[in-house]
Amino acid sequence: MQFSDLVEKLNLANSHSLKASSAADREITGTAPVDEATEGTISYIEGAKFAAHAATTNASALILPLDEGLQAQCSDRNIAWIAAADPRLLFAQTIGIFYQPFRPASEIHPSATIHPEAEIGENVSIGPHTVIQAKVKIGNNVCIHPNVVIYPDAVIGENTVLHANCVIHERARIGANCVIHSGAAIGSEGFGFVPTASGWVKMEQSGCTVLEEGVEVGCNSTIDRPAVGETRIGQNTKIDNLVHVGHGCQIGKNCAFAAHVGLAGGVIIGNNVILAGQVGIANQAKIGDGAIATAKAGIHSDVPAGAIVTGVPAIPHKLFLKAAAVYNRLPEMYQSLRQIQRRIDRL
Amino acid sequence: MQFSDLVEKLNLANSHSLKASSAADREITGTAPVDEATEGTISYIEGAKFAAHAATTNASALILPLDEGLQAQCSDRNIAWIAAADPRLLFAQTIGIFYQPFRPASEIHPSATIHPEAEIGENVSIGPHTVIQAKVKIGNNVCIHPNVVIYPDAVIGENTVLHANCVIHERARIGANCVIHSGAAIGSEGFGFVPTASGWVKMEQSGCTVLEEGVEVGCNSTIDRPAVGETRIGQNTKIDNLVHVGHGCQIGKNCAFAAHVGLAGGVIIGNNVILAGQVGIANQAKIGDGAIATAKAGIHSDVPAGAIVTGVPAIPHKLFLKAAAVYNRLPEMYQSLRQIQRRIDRL
Amino acid sequence: MQFSDLVEKLNLANSHSLKASSAADREITGTAPVDEATEGTISYIEGAKFAAHAATTNASALILPLDEGLQAQCSDRNIAWIAAADPRLLFAQTIGIFYQPFRPASEIHPSATIHPEAEIGENVSIGPHTVIQAKVKIGNNVCIHPNVVIYPDAVIGENTVLHANCVIHERARIGANCVIHSGAAIGSEGFGFVPTASGWVKMEQSGCTVLEEGVEVGCNSTIDRPAVGETRIGQNTKIDNLVHVGHGCQIGKNCAFAAHVGLAGGVIIGNNVILAGQVGIANQAKIGDGAIATAKAGIHSDVPAGAIVTGVPAIPHKLFLKAAAVYNRLPEMYQSLRQIQRRIDRL
Repeated sequence: MQFSDLVEKLNLANSHSLKASSAADREITGTAPVDEATEGTISYIEGAKFAAHAATTNASALILPLDEGLQAQCSDRNIAWIAAADPRLLFAQTIGIFYQPFRPASEIHPSATIHPEAEIGENVSIGPHTVIQAKVKIGNNVCIHPNVVIYPDAVIGENTVLHANCVIHERARIGANCVIHSGAAIGSEGFGFVPTASGWVKMEQSGCTVLEEGVEVGCNSTIDRPAVGETRIGQNTKIDNLVHVGHGCQIGKNCAFAAHVGLAGGVIIGNNVILAGQVGIANQAKIGDGAIATAKAGIHSDVPAGAIVTGVPAIPHKLFLKAAAVYNRLPEMYQSLRQIQRRIDRL
Repeated sequence: MQFSDLVEKLNLANSHSLKASSAADREITGTAPVDEATEGTISYIEGAKFAAHAATTNASALILPLDEGLQAQCSDRNIAWIAAADPRLLFAQTIGIFYQPFRPASEIHPSATIHPEAEIGENVSIGPHTVIQAKVKIGNNVCIHPNVVIYPDAVIGENTVLHANCVIHERARIGANCVIHSGAAIGSEGFGFVPTASGWVKMEQSGCTVLEEGVEVGCNSTIDRPAVGETRIGQNTKIDNLVHVGHGCQIGKNCAFAAHVGLAGGVIIGNNVILAGQVGIANQAKIGDGAIATAKAGIHSDVPAGAIVTGVPAIPHKLFLKAAAVYNRLPEMYQSLRQIQRRIDRL
Repeated sequence: MQFSDLVEKLNLANSHSLKASSAADREITGTAPVDEATEGTISYIEGAKFAAHAATTNASALILPLDEGLQAQCSDRNIAWIAAADPRLLFAQTIGIFYQPFRPASEIHPSATIHPEAEIGENVSIGPHTVIQAKVKIGNNVCIHPNVVIYPDAVIGENTVLHANCVIHERARIGANCVIHSGAAIGSEGFGFVPTASGWVKMEQSGCTVLEEGVEVGCNSTIDRPAVGETRIGQNTKIDNLVHVGHGCQIGKNCAFAAHVGLAGGVIIGNNVILAGQVGIANQAKIGDGAIATAKAGIHSDVPAGAIVTGVPAIPHKLFLKAAAVYNRLPEMYQSLRQIQRRIDRL
């Protein structure tokens, strides 16, 4: 594709006129990371850390931030460029122009085992060796990759993609436009055992798990169902790999949870909450809208809206940074303190 | 079901006469969370945090603690109630009365691949696309959901349930009444590599994994086998999702491990031990009976019986709470210390 | 096998003459852990912690370190022995003599679904219900266990083993002599979402994941692919269970990552790096050759070659040990500080 055609497509996608280099038009054949880009590829630069690459990249074109210095530098190096307030978003759109994700044909493979009481929509792809149990409802344009198992009474919304070997448990309701990645378990039994003098007594998990529209769940993540009621993941919330969401959690919209996040039972999370990698949240804790927990935070009590928390137990991020800086000096502080004590004792 | 019939069933289950409200009998059709309960449902209240719901719930019946104030409040609101020392246990029994978990028919699906040298018990359910290798023994009443794979020489005890897509590896011995949840791997190869000048040399894992009676293993958890000997999980121990148990661990009876717990190799754990979410235990550490590790604890050395430990490295919980409270004041302590030093220098 | 024959085999494997006991020859039938060994088995002793077992083990033979005291003790107890600088390596070789891991027959099961455009090498084992999509290339002697799914355009190198229910995603290139354990997902979509005013916008992940020769990936681990370019795992790197490697990470050769390690996006790791259990590394951090991160370390910035780091945020291990020792005394330090302040105020 000619660079000028690409600019036009991106202009259309963003309903405005992007600033672009006026250099000679050239052929762009694909996308690449800026430090590995070769002749004919387009890449992007975002943030100070990557700006230095403008001087060395072999990319034929770059998506740049609104930085006239960088733009001039690229023009000098004969690199075609497009500038935008959010280069990363523009690069995502550019990848979407060059790359189509794999989508199997819309057919039902003869080796799939589909219960006669299941309802299957139109234009659905059902891969080999999938199992669809009684009273499952599959919406239109759903894509089910091989070896997926869907337990009875589950509902899969339109356009949703279930990747290979994931398991959707009984009564789970997955909205439209969701993606469940390989090996994830949705609606599995919550960890519900009552301690008694004679050991753990199982509490049957009669509730269900609900994923609203546009949710993604990463590979091998697990979203349990509760004993009664629902576990719910709000619209457009994105969940990375190996995340655990316990029984009865209520997660808001547009959240993002990184890998290895673990939520105990009954956690309530607002909208637009970001949990970085390996964060853990204890039973029943409430996290307000827009809060952020940095990597490895351990949250035992409620977090107000908009707060940024860090550490175990989690405290305000700025306070943590100061305390962590002093932590390194604890041995030296301890010595100072003893020394002072001796000096005072001698006074 | 009439409320009076439910009380009778619960009385039978608990071999004693439960205290119950004398209000007019009413129809109970199901169970619900106390804050989402509707007309006709029964819920439960446990602990101070939930007591306030007695004033607002729409449940027609409640299971209450032995608290006469709450009981009177419910009677006033025309809520039928049953009171018990352990409302949660009674609620578990109540769910069991209203809800039957999904159990596929006891038949062997024709798409299952079963080795002629496997031994299959009576009244067994074997789902589509399961694979059962040579010399596997399956006990009576076992339920194997779809797409499960069982490697050679494994043994599955009576009444055990294997959920979809789990994998049972060679020589694993799973006791009676166990539940293995979706995607779990039991008896997989331990992480055994010997460091040498020319890189890692693999140590073949010729041992096996043994799960005693009544063990549950959560979705996508992994219980490795050792190079020699056994990895063993004791009777009625319950393991949540995404837990890793390394090669050669010896776990006692009636333990509970929450999600993301990770045990390195050769860890020895007593009976009735509770490990909260994301706890990690280092190679060869020994944990005494009844010990508790709170969420995210990192245990590097032995923990005595009955201890409660927290932190990385784990220390007694009470000490941790005090130290953590001071941690927040470290920046201020550091300033005080410098100030004092200056004042003393001036003396 | 006679003990003398075993010694001869181990001599051959190590191209040198091992020091061995001169006691009467005896039959060795298998390997065992030193504390559970029975008549006829061989075990090994490594490190002070296990040396005491020489006095009590029922093993008929032991592999010992170069410690003449231990050797004499074994001779006295009529235990045949072999001594070596690295008893663990010798024991690994000994297990390899007595134990052959399960390897299914080299045949393609009729229930496998193989796309006509896939290329399958010679002497390949393809288990029941596996799915091999278009343009996949499978090298010679590859072993694919049941229920594995391979997306289009993936390449599997010679002698590689794919365990049950793992998923290899589009374009992944797995080298020769690799082992992918049960339920692992290789080349799955990176967690790529661009934050915008109207929510998360998906960045398609058009890159791929490359595993060089001799890599092992543990059960239910996930190695994501990036938006552009590659995620790469270097030769002979060994990865344990439930590990997450984010999009675009570059991992060197001969590394070892323990269970629950989580790497965010674009992490760059040198050769011979060891990450203990539950370590987390933030976006773009660089870890130098030979560095070690101890269990639960949280790494937010670059780590120099050869460093040993601990803690969250990770600091040099020795400093951490000192600081952690003082952490326990924080409450007492806080009291001392207040006391001193009062005394000074009175001066």
